[in-house]
Amino acid sequence: MSSSDVVTAAVLVIGDEILSGRTKDKNIGYIADYMTALGIDLKEVRVVSDDEAAVVGALNALRSAYTYVFTTGGIGPTHDDITADCIAKAFGVPLEFHPEAVAIMTERATKMGTEMNEARMRMTRIPKGGALVYNKVSGAPGFWIGNVITMAGIPSVMHAMLDEVAPKLKTGVKMISESIRADAREGDVGTELGAIAKAHPDTIIGSYPFVDEKGGPNTNLVIRSRDAAKLAAAKTAVEAMLADIKAKMGPI
Amino acid sequence: MSSSDVVTAAVLVIGDEILSGRTKDKNIGYIADYMTALGIDLKEVRVVSDDEAAVVGALNALRSAYTYVFTTGGIGPTHDDITADCIAKAFGVPLEFHPEAVAIMTERATKMGTEMNEARMRMTRIPKGGALVYNKVSGAPGFWIGNVITMAGIPSVMHAMLDEVAPKLKTGVKMISESIRADAREGDVGTELGAIAKAHPDTIIGSYPFVDEKGGPNTNLVIRSRDAAKLAAAKTAVEAMLADIKAKMGPI
Repeated sequence: MSSSDVVTAAVLVIGDEILSGRTKDKNIGYIADYMTALGIDLKEVRVVSDDEAAVVGALNALRSAYTYVFTTGGIGPTHDDITADCIAKAFGVPLEFHPEAVAIMTERATKMGTEMNEARMRMTRIPKGGALVYNKVSGAPGFWIGNVITMAGIPSVMHAMLDEVAPKLKTGVKMISESIRADAREGDVGTELGAIAKAHPDTIIGSYPFVDEKGGPNTNLVIRSRDAAKLAAAKTAVEAMLADIKAKMGPI
Repeated sequence: MSSSDVVTAAVLVIGDEILSGRTKDKNIGYIADYMTALGIDLKEVRVVSDDEAAVVGALNALRSAYTYVFTTGGIGPTHDDITADCIAKAFGVPLEFHPEAVAIMTERATKMGTEMNEARMRMTRIPKGGALVYNKVSGAPGFWIGNVITMAGIPSVMHAMLDEVAPKLKTGVKMISESIRADAREGDVGTELGAIAKAHPDTIIGSYPFVDEKGGPNTNLVIRSRDAAKLAAAKTAVEAMLADIKAKMGPI
């Protein structure tokens, strides 16, 4: 499997309100599911405050490390919405009123019976060279520059923007997975599972304890791979190991 | 206000299952609320995969930048639980079986009628010099070394560990906040709000759009400060601004 089969992504969540606890993020998990479904490996997430140095620093670190960076938050009309400024700064390009964004926002303001004022004009500032990312929910566009896709923080708007860009993203070979309920304690399968993981290097084997319907400790084992045959071989090994352990220890 | 009044923190979430979307993180928001209540500024969050280079890199970046780093996840008994190894590596200390952790885990294994095997022994490995962080929920301890506090990923266990360390944390002057419902669109208050924010530099003013009970666009304005008098002055300015705008535009 060549490295070109793997497409990676990071998410950068921008907003004091997430870090203060006032707003609970719902975007990380949504984008994680979305990337997995597309065949893109989400490798890292960062949450930073509405602070230029913090946003620019995180953005530059992430955009040099991964195929795509998705940002959420900070593209509204108020003084604390500084994402566009930060991205322009990170790319070293000017921030300009984008004629199509101005047209979209002006039409929308007229329809709502409000004025196209200085605050709303803030939302039409796009880093030079960036393409608009339309959204059918609230109108105000996000943008895509280089490998960075800037989206709103409001979940419904972010979803619309992700749907807009998804068909244009490069995607990799999809990771497939199998989940096996161990009916065993994690501590009783750990050693054997580690040996299986070592023997099946093209798979990723995860172990996730949970409390089952009887209120007892139980474990889900998840095997992931881009190769169906290797996934099946690891699954067979895990199932044989679980049968051995149950024969030895009896049911939990 | 001196800089010693400000205590900062970062959260490092470790786990493939968060990045694949399989598990939805519930710890970030919980820790954010907890830090705010304690008077500690949560400044950054990162989520990384179960990969040594990724964990060590993030940990070193965060522990040099903030007063405290709280990690969640990766301290279970299986091969994909590599947090203790990574923290030992980051601090340049050996990872050792901690006698008290061994005693706790052995007693627990005996009570459950299971064996103290190699997998469970993994959970007693603590970076040399680290102190145990007890948990009354599942028994298995976390640990505290330098300015890094390592906790479980399972929310109920993490909560117990946070309660255990909270009384020992240095805390700063608490941030206080006032929330004002604008009854106005964000785009109609943005310009004026920006001017108020500039005129009140010891406050942090955030603007958060929401859909109200009539289904229309509305905005919450949140003013935060460590100084009650400065908070009150900014609040008065915001309320006067909202009254002016309502007089001009009528109700939304």
